[in-house]
Amino acid sequence: MPLQRRRRDGKPHLYEDVVDRIAHMIKGGSFRCGERIPSIRAMSDRLRVSVNTVAAAYARLEDLRLVEARPQSGFYVLPFEVAALGARRPDAREDISAREVTIGDDAMAIIRRLSDPALVPLATGAPNTALLPYRKLNALLAAEARRHPVESASYGSPRGNKHLRQQISRRLLTAGCSVAPEEITVTCGCVEAVSLALRAVCRPGDAVAIGSPVYYTFLNAIQHLGLKVVEIPTDPREGLDIDVLRFALRHAPVRAVVAITNFDNPLGCVMPDRNKQRLVELLAADGIPLIEDDVYGDLGFSGSRPASAKAFDRAGLVLQCASVSKTLAPGYRVGWIVAGRFQAEIEALKALTNIATPSPTQLAVAEFLATGGYDRHLRSLRRTYHVQMAQLRSAVARHFPPATRVSLPAGGSVLWVEMPDRVDALKLHAEALKHGIAVAPGPLFTVGGDYRNCVRLSASTWSPRVEKAVAALGAMACRAAGEDSVASCPADARTA
Amino acid sequence: MPLQRRRRDGKPHLYEDVVDRIAHMIKGGSFRCGERIPSIRAMSDRLRVSVNTVAAAYARLEDLRLVEARPQSGFYVLPFEVAALGARRPDAREDISAREVTIGDDAMAIIRRLSDPALVPLATGAPNTALLPYRKLNALLAAEARRHPVESASYGSPRGNKHLRQQISRRLLTAGCSVAPEEITVTCGCVEAVSLALRAVCRPGDAVAIGSPVYYTFLNAIQHLGLKVVEIPTDPREGLDIDVLRFALRHAPVRAVVAITNFDNPLGCVMPDRNKQRLVELLAADGIPLIEDDVYGDLGFSGSRPASAKAFDRAGLVLQCASVSKTLAPGYRVGWIVAGRFQAEIEALKALTNIATPSPTQLAVAEFLATGGYDRHLRSLRRTYHVQMAQLRSAVARHFPPATRVSLPAGGSVLWVEMPDRVDALKLHAEALKHGIAVAPGPLFTVGGDYRNCVRLSASTWSPRVEKAVAALGAMACRAAGEDSVASCPADARTA
Repeated sequence: MPLQRRRRDGKPHLYEDVVDRIAHMIKGGSFRCGERIPSIRAMSDRLRVSVNTVAAAYARLEDLRLVEARPQSGFYVLPFEVAALGARRPDAREDISAREVTIGDDAMAIIRRLSDPALVPLATGAPNTALLPYRKLNALLAAEARRHPVESASYGSPRGNKHLRQQISRRLLTAGCSVAPEEITVTCGCVEAVSLALRAVCRPGDAVAIGSPVYYTFLNAIQHLGLKVVEIPTDPREGLDIDVLRFALRHAPVRAVVAITNFDNPLGCVMPDRNKQRLVELLAADGIPLIEDDVYGDLGFSGSRPASAKAFDRAGLVLQCASVSKTLAPGYRVGWIVAGRFQAEIEALKALTNIATPSPTQLAVAEFLATGGYDRHLRSLRRTYHVQMAQLRSAVARHFPPATRVSLPAGGSVLWVEMPDRVDALKLHAEALKHGIAVAPGPLFTVGGDYRNCVRLSASTWSPRVEKAVAALGAMACRAAGEDSVASCPADARTA
Repeated sequence: MPLQRRRRDGKPHLYEDVVDRIAHMIKGGSFRCGERIPSIRAMSDRLRVSVNTVAAAYARLEDLRLVEARPQSGFYVLPFEVAALGARRPDAREDISAREVTIGDDAMAIIRRLSDPALVPLATGAPNTALLPYRKLNALLAAEARRHPVESASYGSPRGNKHLRQQISRRLLTAGCSVAPEEITVTCGCVEAVSLALRAVCRPGDAVAIGSPVYYTFLNAIQHLGLKVVEIPTDPREGLDIDVLRFALRHAPVRAVVAITNFDNPLGCVMPDRNKQRLVELLAADGIPLIEDDVYGDLGFSGSRPASAKAFDRAGLVLQCASVSKTLAPGYRVGWIVAGRFQAEIEALKALTNIATPSPTQLAVAEFLATGGYDRHLRSLRRTYHVQMAQLRSAVARHFPPATRVSLPAGGSVLWVEMPDRVDALKLHAEALKHGIAVAPGPLFTVGGDYRNCVRLSASTWSPRVEKAVAALGAMACRAAGEDSVASCPADARTA
């Protein structure tokens, strides 16, 4: 039975005053997440109230999930929690239609500034270079150019350096794929791989099914290739809704499907293996190619690396795209595509796009994968992103309006934040920009004009400056929502 | 008055026998181009014929352009000469129409093997890496990655590294262009620049005017973008026929023009400045963009660097594409485009193609242009190509059928060879392949099925192995033509 908050005469119980004072100290940062607060007896001494009053207050703080009691140890401050986005509710009247993509100049201007290094980097999808092994990689770049001076300066083949393809082939085993080096084509990063894949399997006017929300660069690429999109809702926990996709395949002329299968951008979710298999089999039945972006696959917070959809591909219809841009060095522009039955067309297009991927960076990445301790580096990177993601979620919980809900990323570095309806993400973006803060507004991630109250935040960098920016952003959102932030709300509002 | 070759009794003059014997030694290589042959007196002693007879023979050898007399010095072996392709004769009934490009699998298979390193490299358009300053460049790659460790590993902007763009901007002055660094977009080589340009200015179904013969990769790119071509005859000395182009603009829906303005591939010619200006003004009048490939511009055999067509651009309609792939390192994949009024669209497409050009190679090339002695290196490279081109022409003159005609390249590394009609270049290519020799057959350079008796040869590498391959190729062509080679013909056949 919950404690009574008010006495019969309408005045607050004395313990409520204690709750408010301690909650205020926790939310203000006097006691931080994971720290022990003073014992009941010590608090009773300090506040000069009875032990019973403090005990009632601590019980209430436990109810509010601000602290937890640990037997024989005391009371500890819990992380601030924010509600997670729930599973998507199926809607029988899904709007399935092939639409033109029309990204306006306004949106393009926003996108161009998302990675502006002068801004607090809360909008970027790029990794934090400080977390990457760039010194070792640069040293290998120098050493390999010395070791293979002519190869370094000469045209490689469109397919790419053989040593690199061997290393990639070995890494792909961790994603459940047994792929020979000859089946891999090296590209200038994953975006080039996806772009080549779209060009290989679609012709202008064709429709491509994609998740919603989806990484805006895909929409942009689709627009420039003269393609249309069919948006398939993405469940925040399981990825692309395969039932809706099945329906869409019957009702729209879908030529290909594009999906980020692991640690989706922007939702961070992983498509369960059974869904990957269903997806691959569903498309194989109609002979429709799946363009799989698995660039975040190595960035899971825990456990083993999830499988690629490519692992379930029997028909050669999955074009798996990835890179080392998120884990080693985006500036090296080394990615690849395993294109199945489309490999010849991909290699022809690659040759016409830029003849071949630059040689020196291929040599360096090959050597890093072979000898650089990639797994050890990954463990450290994944741990750091995991911690930073918790810090970001906690800060959003503390500073954003109480009704805010967030995604539950299982890996990667981006968090999807759904604010109360009254908050306009585009206005929030504009206001944040004035304060030197970059944030990616939700409408960039769709052609349908949805997600007006959503933003994507990045956990790739965490620092007092970033934390302060999240607080400032939360305050702006609270003002827009006409609400106080969680941290400044009465303690009980959080249980509403 | 020419010497009489036969006596009144029908038998050859004695001096004719001497002519044949010395010509045979020259053509067989006993006396090589530039060497002095024995004096008249010495030859008279050795052949045991009179001084007058040798003098008559030497005079005849001069007539035949096999040797030249140098006052107070003696007689020197001249380079073998082959007739040059003449100026194109205008044809009032030019076939001007927009055609589909349909490069078949056979042609693609040929193209893929042209640069096969196992073959004698007579087909490649690539530079000879041995002539490039790859050691210095690789050293700068290492040094710059050490100096800018974070920048080297991080995403650059789609526009490219600023230091590099400054250096390119300075170099462009030698081509008559005053272009600010902000007007330059860095690309992964010149092919990427041309490909982005085509995508920026054309939509599928549009027609593009190109020279004929033309670098086959352009045809290939045009095909894959769903474009059509209007072939404009190219004069072997002056490039694109601007009168025919003017006619074509009136009679075909030309959306853009693609031209290699300096040291054309495959013809090696330079478009005179007055023609560049006419071309730019003609297109400006109709608002039609010119995609200018100036990748060979630094490779002239003599004199100052020719201007780019971009130098005459007042309307921002010229998209100038180039790279350092022919002069520094093809494997670095560093090129650029000066896109005029299309720059915003080019940069958007660049971002969607591969986000940005890799950073380490940009840093290295920038530093080479700034400090590496680029001009000194160019002088050496141009001299070497000049000498090797003379050697290639001389070998063709010696070994190919007498009616063979060749282009007169003013720079670059490729020679266009027109053989007698009876020689089928595709068959020659197939036979050469069996002997481990790569040669680019003429039909690759057009959509119209012309140039069946032409091949493109490369002067980028010269060695006894290459020389032997040219001899073997010439022998095959002679057999196909049902003729003897020049070297084995009676000496007088060459004056026919």
